[in-house]
Amino acid sequence: MSDTVQDKKLPVSDKVKSAMALIKRGVDTLLIEDELEQKLAKSEATGKPLRIKLGLDPTAPDIHIGHTVVLNKLRQFQDLGHTVIFLVGDFTSAIGDPSGRNVTRPPLTREQIETNAKTYLDQAYLVLDPNKTEVRFNSEWSNKLGADGLIKLASRYTLARLLERDDFAKRYKENAPIAMHELLYPLMQGYDSVVLEADVELGGSDQRFNLLVGRELQRQYGQEAQCIITMPLLVGLDGVNKMSKSKHNYIGITEDPNEMFGKVMSISDDLMWNWYDLLSMKSNEDIAQLKKECAEGKNPRDAKVLLAKEIITRFHNAEAADAAEQEFINRFKKGAVPADIPSVTVKAESSEVALAKVLKEAGLVPTTAEGYRNIEQGGVHVNGEKVLERNFKIQPGTYTVQVGKRKWAQITLAQ
Amino acid sequence: MSDTVQDKKLPVSDKVKSAMALIKRGVDTLLIEDELEQKLAKSEATGKPLRIKLGLDPTAPDIHIGHTVVLNKLRQFQDLGHTVIFLVGDFTSAIGDPSGRNVTRPPLTREQIETNAKTYLDQAYLVLDPNKTEVRFNSEWSNKLGADGLIKLASRYTLARLLERDDFAKRYKENAPIAMHELLYPLMQGYDSVVLEADVELGGSDQRFNLLVGRELQRQYGQEAQCIITMPLLVGLDGVNKMSKSKHNYIGITEDPNEMFGKVMSISDDLMWNWYDLLSMKSNEDIAQLKKECAEGKNPRDAKVLLAKEIITRFHNAEAADAAEQEFINRFKKGAVPADIPSVTVKAESSEVALAKVLKEAGLVPTTAEGYRNIEQGGVHVNGEKVLERNFKIQPGTYTVQVGKRKWAQITLAQ
Repeated sequence: MSDTVQDKKLPVSDKVKSAMALIKRGVDTLLIEDELEQKLAKSEATGKPLRIKLGLDPTAPDIHIGHTVVLNKLRQFQDLGHTVIFLVGDFTSAIGDPSGRNVTRPPLTREQIETNAKTYLDQAYLVLDPNKTEVRFNSEWSNKLGADGLIKLASRYTLARLLERDDFAKRYKENAPIAMHELLYPLMQGYDSVVLEADVELGGSDQRFNLLVGRELQRQYGQEAQCIITMPLLVGLDGVNKMSKSKHNYIGITEDPNEMFGKVMSISDDLMWNWYDLLSMKSNEDIAQLKKECAEGKNPRDAKVLLAKEIITRFHNAEAADAAEQEFINRFKKGAVPADIPSVTVKAESSEVALAKVLKEAGLVPTTAEGYRNIEQGGVHVNGEKVLERNFKIQPGTYTVQVGKRKWAQITLAQ
Repeated sequence: MSDTVQDKKLPVSDKVKSAMALIKRGVDTLLIEDELEQKLAKSEATGKPLRIKLGLDPTAPDIHIGHTVVLNKLRQFQDLGHTVIFLVGDFTSAIGDPSGRNVTRPPLTREQIETNAKTYLDQAYLVLDPNKTEVRFNSEWSNKLGADGLIKLASRYTLARLLERDDFAKRYKENAPIAMHELLYPLMQGYDSVVLEADVELGGSDQRFNLLVGRELQRQYGQEAQCIITMPLLVGLDGVNKMSKSKHNYIGITEDPNEMFGKVMSISDDLMWNWYDLLSMKSNEDIAQLKKECAEGKNPRDAKVLLAKEIITRFHNAEAADAAEQEFINRFKKGAVPADIPSVTVKAESSEVALAKVLKEAGLVPTTAEGYRNIEQGGVHVNGEKVLERNFKIQPGTYTVQVGKRKWAQITLAQ
């Protein structure tokens, strides 16, 4: 059994304290803070990098910037000198959902898995440092495990502990079926941490329980338990909903630089600071300085420009970021978007409201009928795009809206 | 998917009806009677023997006649022309109980498993016909299954169904831990039935749930579901408790023929008829005839002699049975046991009563103190054995008791 951190507490340097502050930025959960601090102190003392694990289900390789929140946190660890282990869950992906209940989880072929993993990695390396990334496939040890190894693994965990997972507890309570293999997957995932001797595992907030299983299994196998970090889901362009393709409130990481620039510029100031925490590689100190300047009178638009350029530089390059900024300025100069447009808040009566009605409420047209007429004539633009559908509906969020040539407003449809 | 018996009902011959009557004799549970009848009819029509499975945990190879109740039922199937599959659960035995909670289930080495299985088989072949017995080891397919195969297997069953097992339900309700591997064992056992394409599976009454899992998994795998038969535990010599070594109310199958004879002769008439059902290979008709004769005045002692000789013939040979009978008769002639001794029933005040007290209650001695004195002087025999311990206690049951040379009684200590 390795030394537990409780045995001998190491002194915590300023460098470790500063690393902790950076790591804690934007996280949803960090368990256990003291333990992580000690792991960092031990790493500093021994010069041995920590092993930071991220599991990847190689099913949906096309990612948007919402998916990069976790990658950014990993990159911070890399910049602090630690090793990221990118774990491809090929073993379970090849099985899929054998009960056939979950249609979104068909079994994948070896070829599909490798293609998906490569596509994902190509995208992830836009954020991660490949030299500090170890890529592993869990079939390496899961196949060797055998039926007997899986039974032994299962003996390390009780049913009651597994049923503490929210969705299992809910389904069990409601007599909704839980197929037995579903209970084995968290154990397999936890076993990955044992084999990899992970010091920290990251995941989305929905992964909290599974990460904790890894923590406990490591203890069972006589290892120091991993710390776990979950990251929140990124809020999308509308400022309300989680970023997702189906909500059309996302920025794809392969999108055109001008698109990216315009989209970042469209978000609210509040959301911008949240994005700084979750997406920027700037230090805590630099972000604090920027906030201070804005509080003292700097236009937040300038901070948004910096964020947009940082994101474009990451996914394209610095020249593309400069060009996108210039293009944006040119559009301003041509009067495409007035420098100072009124902000209007409209109360939404339901989860979707017809744009024509919103135009009327915002005072951009005298009647809803007039709103419909303007849309039909192609005279209405939302976030720079012409609205083509008469009965176009918008969801709560903030939009830059133009009616005809001269009428502008930044409309916030509030819930 | 094979034809289900529901699809086309076969006519049931008298031969099948008679086979059903034999198979049903003495069983604890038979599920489903109609299905078994159809399986027998189909076997008769096609000439294809049914496959009758018995699982064996190769841990405790030294058996007594109580353990042969299930073997006898298997032998009846063999005599009807069917094949017995003797399944050695070597896969799970090699794992043991990895949680270490169950100390009675240490992992066994390959050598131990083979030695135990061989010892068991040598004994089982005293009852079974080796030519109609197929011996299989489940490691043959369980090792091949792999972790992925076990996960797929687990996907065929829900947690809720597994928690219907009495002991699991009880432990879950009482918050007693259930280690996850315990839930996998019934599935592995059921999978054995799938691989073996069992038509019928036998077990003790505590195996009912596990046998049902096999039934359901076969359906899941598109097979005709096995019928299940559970046999009751044999009541021991005392006529009250289940036969077990710890209760000292058993007949070991390697015991001396004279011991066996004496022990069978000591059981009550009621128990004798129960033993006929469970241990005799006589036909239902022959047993009915014997009962009729006894009802019409034949001494039940003669029926007991027949049973004793059948059992001795099975585990030794016919000559040994004849010799044991002769020895018993000689002892009678010498007056070792009077031919007609009084039967006395004594009410037990607790689960164990001092023999000295029972002697007094039965009228064999005038006072309890006198009873103790007789025991101390070595003058008291129970079932032919001298009692050595002053404070010897007996449990409810029937005993042949001798005090001194002349005083005899068959004492039933009733609860």
